[in-house]
Amino acid sequence: MAQRSGTGGRATDLSSCPAFPSALESNVKYLLAFTLAAACATAAAASTETRIPDAAVRAAEQLRDRAMNDDTAYKLVEGLTTEIGPRLAAGDNDARAREWVIAKFKALGFDKVYTEPVTYPKWVRRHESGSIVAPFPQNLVLTALGHSFATPTGGLTAEVVHFDSLDALKAADPSAIKGRIVYVGARMHRYKDGRDYGIGSPIRTQGPVIAASKGAAAFILRSAGTDATDRIAHTGVTGFADAKANGIPAAALSNPDADQLERILAYGKPVTVKLDLDVGFEGDYTGANVIGEVTGKKHPDQIVDIGGHLDSWDPGTGAIDDAAGVAIAAAAAHLIAQLPQRPDRTIRVIAFANEEAGLYGGKAYAEAHAKEVARHVLGSESDFGAAPVWRFSASVKPEARKAIAQIADVLKPIGVEYAADRSGGGGSDLSQMHAKGMAALSIGQDGTHYFDIHHTSNDTLDKIVPKEIAQNAAVYAVYAYMAAQAEGDFGSAPGAFKNDKDED
Amino acid sequence: MAQRSGTGGRATDLSSCPAFPSALESNVKYLLAFTLAAACATAAAASTETRIPDAAVRAAEQLRDRAMNDDTAYKLVEGLTTEIGPRLAAGDNDARAREWVIAKFKALGFDKVYTEPVTYPKWVRRHESGSIVAPFPQNLVLTALGHSFATPTGGLTAEVVHFDSLDALKAADPSAIKGRIVYVGARMHRYKDGRDYGIGSPIRTQGPVIAASKGAAAFILRSAGTDATDRIAHTGVTGFADAKANGIPAAALSNPDADQLERILAYGKPVTVKLDLDVGFEGDYTGANVIGEVTGKKHPDQIVDIGGHLDSWDPGTGAIDDAAGVAIAAAAAHLIAQLPQRPDRTIRVIAFANEEAGLYGGKAYAEAHAKEVARHVLGSESDFGAAPVWRFSASVKPEARKAIAQIADVLKPIGVEYAADRSGGGGSDLSQMHAKGMAALSIGQDGTHYFDIHHTSNDTLDKIVPKEIAQNAAVYAVYAYMAAQAEGDFGSAPGAFKNDKDED
Repeated sequence: MAQRSGTGGRATDLSSCPAFPSALESNVKYLLAFTLAAACATAAAASTETRIPDAAVRAAEQLRDRAMNDDTAYKLVEGLTTEIGPRLAAGDNDARAREWVIAKFKALGFDKVYTEPVTYPKWVRRHESGSIVAPFPQNLVLTALGHSFATPTGGLTAEVVHFDSLDALKAADPSAIKGRIVYVGARMHRYKDGRDYGIGSPIRTQGPVIAASKGAAAFILRSAGTDATDRIAHTGVTGFADAKANGIPAAALSNPDADQLERILAYGKPVTVKLDLDVGFEGDYTGANVIGEVTGKKHPDQIVDIGGHLDSWDPGTGAIDDAAGVAIAAAAAHLIAQLPQRPDRTIRVIAFANEEAGLYGGKAYAEAHAKEVARHVLGSESDFGAAPVWRFSASVKPEARKAIAQIADVLKPIGVEYAADRSGGGGSDLSQMHAKGMAALSIGQDGTHYFDIHHTSNDTLDKIVPKEIAQNAAVYAVYAYMAAQAEGDFGSAPGAFKNDKDED
Repeated sequence: MAQRSGTGGRATDLSSCPAFPSALESNVKYLLAFTLAAACATAAAASTETRIPDAAVRAAEQLRDRAMNDDTAYKLVEGLTTEIGPRLAAGDNDARAREWVIAKFKALGFDKVYTEPVTYPKWVRRHESGSIVAPFPQNLVLTALGHSFATPTGGLTAEVVHFDSLDALKAADPSAIKGRIVYVGARMHRYKDGRDYGIGSPIRTQGPVIAASKGAAAFILRSAGTDATDRIAHTGVTGFADAKANGIPAAALSNPDADQLERILAYGKPVTVKLDLDVGFEGDYTGANVIGEVTGKKHPDQIVDIGGHLDSWDPGTGAIDDAAGVAIAAAAAHLIAQLPQRPDRTIRVIAFANEEAGLYGGKAYAEAHAKEVARHVLGSESDFGAAPVWRFSASVKPEARKAIAQIADVLKPIGVEYAADRSGGGGSDLSQMHAKGMAALSIGQDGTHYFDIHHTSNDTLDKIVPKEIAQNAAVYAVYAYMAAQAEGDFGSAPGAFKNDKDED
């Protein structure tokens, strides 16, 4: 228990309360006043331990058991992936998916359903193909990265230069790169915590930017995916923010195609590849975060944030990434809404817009709600599939550690371990709100196979196991309900948790 | 032992020897004379038991052990799939693959390398795409079947009519089908012997023909594949022989896309699908079977046939289907060629042309060698991947059952079981020679995962396990060598084995 209460959290600095500078700069006076009041109320409460009443613990246990046998989350993923399908941000399905979720949130019995606008670049994928031209001609299974630039009409053919790692690319002399197609081939392996995304993701996001800065004609990588033998490529955003960037065409090869390219490179002859990517930016688009609330009866203005992101990459139907997250959060709130009484605090479900291309929904939300951070008592987004949750951790004030341990006790029977020595980051979009000072959890699904299908055409409903997604919804229902009923807060305050190493 | 000698084989009918009718119809007199002489010699030998000398058994054991640690087969698959890649019959790679194999057979030390012409229709795949248009628009992962007809330029859009089985389609009234896209959705499950291909294959080959005869606009099926969760479609030939057939567009959906279509059909609203298949016949093409021989020193004109087929479907690189088969047979013959002495009989390795579109190579070979059937002492082709061989069976004369049991004893230590109660069919192309009377084996690889990747883009080198393909080569080396050294024959004769139920 010492471990649970001692580390990972960060105390609210009481002395900073009256002089919180960014709040003072605000022009919106009533908001400012409210924020200060809430922050100081939080600080005052920090002198005593936060505690979840016994009755709420018992209610949470019942909620958990009901959720474990509830199919709301699975049915939501089924409906969204079947009736809408792929949900590329700013594509035709962006608005259709939004309308679908609005209708579904209303049907789930939420007290309020509304949207908040989010603006982001529109990027489109029209056609993509590629092949090895020499020495051994054959097609390549590849997919353009999000925000890739197009090849010239008719395609681009150039010699390939091979790097094993991002560091090798960084160290390379531009003369070895200029006019060539840079290929970076690093493998990801399967881990429960998905740690090797820390290899693949930087290659995908930074690799094309570095290659472009050294004069590369284009960039290809071994897919950031752990499916070593699937002829399916993994897309995902790269680091070109908009049409004004110094962009180049950028694509991912399936793992077997990367194997093939590397085998052919090993012959030691010049290897020429043709890329034909008809993709690109088409101005800006305004979508929206969709928000559904179960209004708190005692503290309606105090909020527990849960959610997922509504957009997906276009090759699949975005079942695990992230219809699952939206569905888990919505199912959790729905189960809470079915209790005889509304919870003390408001449960807010957010279906974020355009997480994939750069947390646009999360950033817009954090910007819009920055002044209310102290009222966002605890937040966590689900964006790591729907395999069983096996671990959670928290960034809360020390005085709230025992309340987190109370949540842990309710989650333990369904296989969730409390990692008291780790911090909590809030998940992808809600990391932005956490960065502003919201107390947050990291709720970790088993990610062993997540990166097998992440960002691929293979992200479809069949990858969701009904019993597993029900366990996810149970975890979110328990945490959201217990946070809503807690006597005392979790330490949310402007600027809190700034020094945490977030772990998602 | 009773089981081994009693069933599965078929005795040569001695009384038929002098009056063999199809031989009498031949115009080629010297061939006729030779065939009759050989057939009668075979019949004469049938009075005593066929036996493999002890020295040959010992040599086969050593051959087996060497083969188990030999990487020739793996290296051949690696080379063919890397340097040539996909090998669609009559496509650009048909000739390139042939030249590659000719060069490789020479490099492997075969005594003779030559080709025999095979003519077949040229069918091409230029573009394929499809989508659900209504009620829920989204793309479909599909692939045109081999010998599919094209859709009109710009595609074809029609309502889908759903059948669960081929029988249901057969029973349907044409009025329910006319002008519609017929969809047949039957699932295949994984079995070691791959038995569910008996469900998927008839739907693929006969389904489009039946649908066309009832006026369907097009035909789609759930892929004949056991990968329930891979967004990869399985091609394969359908039943339109050539451009003169009453053909329609025909394509296979990946399993998850078939799931999606069935879910959408279950809403009970009309479901409209668009197909855009730019494919079709382009006249005839003449390729060739490539043959390599290790010449027998005692009976050079008596032949043990082994082989695989050189063509593959175009989406993958044809590693398991069937670079593996060519490689297994070639590696086996290469190992035999490295022995201090040539075997008694000739070992013939055949890399068949265009097995995929209808056993064209096998039929041409059987036609060209029909008169020599009695000289083809025992044959078996490898065309079921490269997972470990777990079972073999034989169609031989009763007096050769003990010799087969001797082969079984040498194969047993490497995990191969002798199914004495089953017959042997010779494999895909060599089934045609067996049908003419050649004694034959069925050599069964573990097919549990064969139909996960069969006829897909996923048929690539990474699916081959080096140690497993070495075991396959060991099986073929042992059987070919022991058959070559046998004292006595296995019952090959014109018209023998006609009543066997072939099991492959």
